[in-house]
Amino acid sequence: MKPSLSRRVAAEFLGTGFLVAAVVGSGIMGERLSGGNAALALLCNTLATGAALVALIFTFGSISGAHFNPVVTFSDAIEKGIDWGDVPAYVGAQVFGGIGGTFTAHLMFGLPIISISRLYRSGVSQVFSEFIATFGLLSVIWGCSRTRSNAVPFAVGLYITAAYWFTASTSFANPAVTIARSLSNTFSGIRPQDAVPFIFAQLIGGLAATFAFRHLVPGLALRAQKIVLPQSADDKG
Amino acid sequence: MKPSLSRRVAAEFLGTGFLVAAVVGSGIMGERLSGGNAALALLCNTLATGAALVALIFTFGSISGAHFNPVVTFSDAIEKGIDWGDVPAYVGAQVFGGIGGTFTAHLMFGLPIISISRLYRSGVSQVFSEFIATFGLLSVIWGCSRTRSNAVPFAVGLYITAAYWFTASTSFANPAVTIARSLSNTFSGIRPQDAVPFIFAQLIGGLAATFAFRHLVPGLALRAQKIVLPQSADDKG
Amino acid sequence: MKPSLSRRVAAEFLGTGFLVAAVVGSGIMGERLSGGNAALALLCNTLATGAALVALIFTFGSISGAHFNPVVTFSDAIEKGIDWGDVPAYVGAQVFGGIGGTFTAHLMFGLPIISISRLYRSGVSQVFSEFIATFGLLSVIWGCSRTRSNAVPFAVGLYITAAYWFTASTSFANPAVTIARSLSNTFSGIRPQDAVPFIFAQLIGGLAATFAFRHLVPGLALRAQKIVLPQSADDKG
Amino acid sequence: MKPSLSRRVAAEFLGTGFLVAAVVGSGIMGERLSGGNAALALLCNTLATGAALVALIFTFGSISGAHFNPVVTFSDAIEKGIDWGDVPAYVGAQVFGGIGGTFTAHLMFGLPIISISRLYRSGVSQVFSEFIATFGLLSVIWGCSRTRSNAVPFAVGLYITAAYWFTASTSFANPAVTIARSLSNTFSGIRPQDAVPFIFAQLIGGLAATFAFRHLVPGLALRAQKIVLPQSADDKG
Repeated sequence: MKPSLSRRVAAEFLGTGFLVAAVVGSGIMGERLSGGNAALALLCNTLATGAALVALIFTFGSISGAHFNPVVTFSDAIEKGIDWGDVPAYVGAQVFGGIGGTFTAHLMFGLPIISISRLYRSGVSQVFSEFIATFGLLSVIWGCSRTRSNAVPFAVGLYITAAYWFTASTSFANPAVTIARSLSNTFSGIRPQDAVPFIFAQLIGGLAATFAFRHLVPGLALRAQKIVLPQSADDKG
Repeated sequence: MKPSLSRRVAAEFLGTGFLVAAVVGSGIMGERLSGGNAALALLCNTLATGAALVALIFTFGSISGAHFNPVVTFSDAIEKGIDWGDVPAYVGAQVFGGIGGTFTAHLMFGLPIISISRLYRSGVSQVFSEFIATFGLLSVIWGCSRTRSNAVPFAVGLYITAAYWFTASTSFANPAVTIARSLSNTFSGIRPQDAVPFIFAQLIGGLAATFAFRHLVPGLALRAQKIVLPQSADDKG
Repeated sequence: MKPSLSRRVAAEFLGTGFLVAAVVGSGIMGERLSGGNAALALLCNTLATGAALVALIFTFGSISGAHFNPVVTFSDAIEKGIDWGDVPAYVGAQVFGGIGGTFTAHLMFGLPIISISRLYRSGVSQVFSEFIATFGLLSVIWGCSRTRSNAVPFAVGLYITAAYWFTASTSFANPAVTIARSLSNTFSGIRPQDAVPFIFAQLIGGLAATFAFRHLVPGLALRAQKIVLPQSADDKG
Repeated sequence: MKPSLSRRVAAEFLGTGFLVAAVVGSGIMGERLSGGNAALALLCNTLATGAALVALIFTFGSISGAHFNPVVTFSDAIEKGIDWGDVPAYVGAQVFGGIGGTFTAHLMFGLPIISISRLYRSGVSQVFSEFIATFGLLSVIWGCSRTRSNAVPFAVGLYITAAYWFTASTSFANPAVTIARSLSNTFSGIRPQDAVPFIFAQLIGGLAATFAFRHLVPGLALRAQKIVLPQSADDKG
């Protein structure tokens, strides 16, 4: 029995909120305590983000699928994992949940609840990094989600842990999180004007991985339909 | 067959004791070795706490449920996971076990077995952080415990790993541990007067998550009864 | 149903590429941010490599077996896990995928896409370290892969995490990755002339472990045939 | 089918050897790279030890049970998990395997293969720490091994990760490893004269936990016999 849309949307809102609170909050704490050592600050930020992601996917996975990310929701709709009609509600919950997460982190650390980021993250290398980061994220999801769904929380959390370090952009890989981080002038922020090419690269990277894995694992969409949408056989392509 | 109450209480005592010994002991070690770098000290403290938590939940989970936390015990009683009559024994074991953990840590590091903490942890941000930290902890527990109980040790350990960094209070999220840490004038301590609002915020946060997840996963309490309390059908609400 | 060779080769190419991008990219990021502290740089490099490895084995394991390493492919062929006829395609995909990973990492960090490494990694201790590192890696694989295949991603990722620190060479343990790293004059590089004895030691170490585990777990090859190659009974030794 | 004694002994020799090589080797590497920061050196040492332990228990667990530790072997014999007649061979393999691990680590790092440690680890606090460390280790093993045996590698590896930091002695908790570390005058060494009280405290702590868990989980020994020793019904106490 799939939970009702309102419950799934609430799960996406809460989960994305906690994810962003973890990213932004641990960035603030890491920068405050690390005495100017950027590697140490990013290490603490990474550890908190990866660990939170594993915990949150376990927590909300059985309710909403624990997307927390519009790229994941779009890809899942393309592969018929969720109905296109549910997509706007999911994406809205992710975007507003993420913003709520920024506000919560700021409140916890005694900062103004909103502050437009002035952190420069621009240039071809950064944008290309977001393409690679999101290509990798969706590869991990499509590689694991249908055949080893129990491994998804660990695989995704560990992938992001790695991608914080192996991409030049520290791997945002998520439009909702990117928007939310543009509203925090702290360690993990991004200038709003830099957020636009990031989001564009994320969408392209995610789509590319989705189509690549359709080739690599041919029965993917078919299997998805059988598992997740038996009630909507009329949707089959 | 549920183990006898005396065995479950012994498990809560030992488990909470080891948990607090891990928190307090690794705080002392981290501070001693880190040469004044607070991020490094907290990183070591975090790693030890999260790792200990996973190991201890695996160890004592099949005996007592591995609550180690009065908020978890109260919430479990509300959801009919354990009998209200067992709650005082659980909470007592957690509080005295936690204090025993502080004593043990002090003995291991050659300190006086008790020392009232003078570490200031006060203000709205800190208290709000405890509300969020405990709301998150109980969300993780209720999101995983009934449908993915094998994941609980990892999800809880990783959540706390993250929450040490994304909350301004380093996420005590546990009244028994808060009391025990007020008796240690070391890295992980808290002044007794600051412990009171922390505990209050923890209780509110935990209750809020318990009721939120009753809405998000409607059959939660019912399923809990079927799994854990088939023998006490007369308790059903 | 085993996936077609072209799909398996694509998976080896992509997986080895992401693995090398993670190794090289996180080495660059770690060195840039760590302010000259080599332990911190290597710690970040280690974390990213180990985490990426777990995620990538989960992602590509059910397609190609997630070898990403010619020593693993040779050993698997010796134990009749894959046909000898598939070995050249696997190894080619690993070598070219790895080089693609170096290029990708350089592009992400705004560096020339290729730069011959001048990092000295020579001497008996270094080469002996590679023998031990690869002996250990293949021991882990043969100890887990037939009887606990679900544990392989974690066991391999955690083994490499450890071996970065307990070997003097930081545990390359992979000829394809060694070649790819010789093309990067960054933190994780290796001079091409030093790569040759490394690869030789890796092959010897891997073969030694393969034969040792044939003795330790006598039914290994037989079980491998039953699980992976039921269709080629005429191959049995 | 239980593997032959010679195979199990070889597994204990190799596994303990790799474990000690990981402890000693990563200690040398951590100290060399960390520029005098003891917390950072111990953090790297901890990460490598915990990760190696998980990988090695997965690797050798299905062959020999992956004891790697005389206290575990004695406790398992007390609980009738292995025959008393196999104990001398197990313990001999652990002690000589551990010494081989020290030699291997020294060879990898270009040091003399043996060097008597001059590292002072003495006093009541240190010895009490070893009692607590080993009490905890055996608690974890007995809490998990019969009912959640799949979790043992993670629970043990994470427990030791934590115990490196929450005990004043950095948690040797293993007589074979203690002897092997006394032969290395490096970061993780211990003076031979200090090794004696350490080993004594380890044995007492391990026995205390074994008897405590016999009370906490009453059917433990009985269940052990059913699972591991069906062939020796005449051994039942």
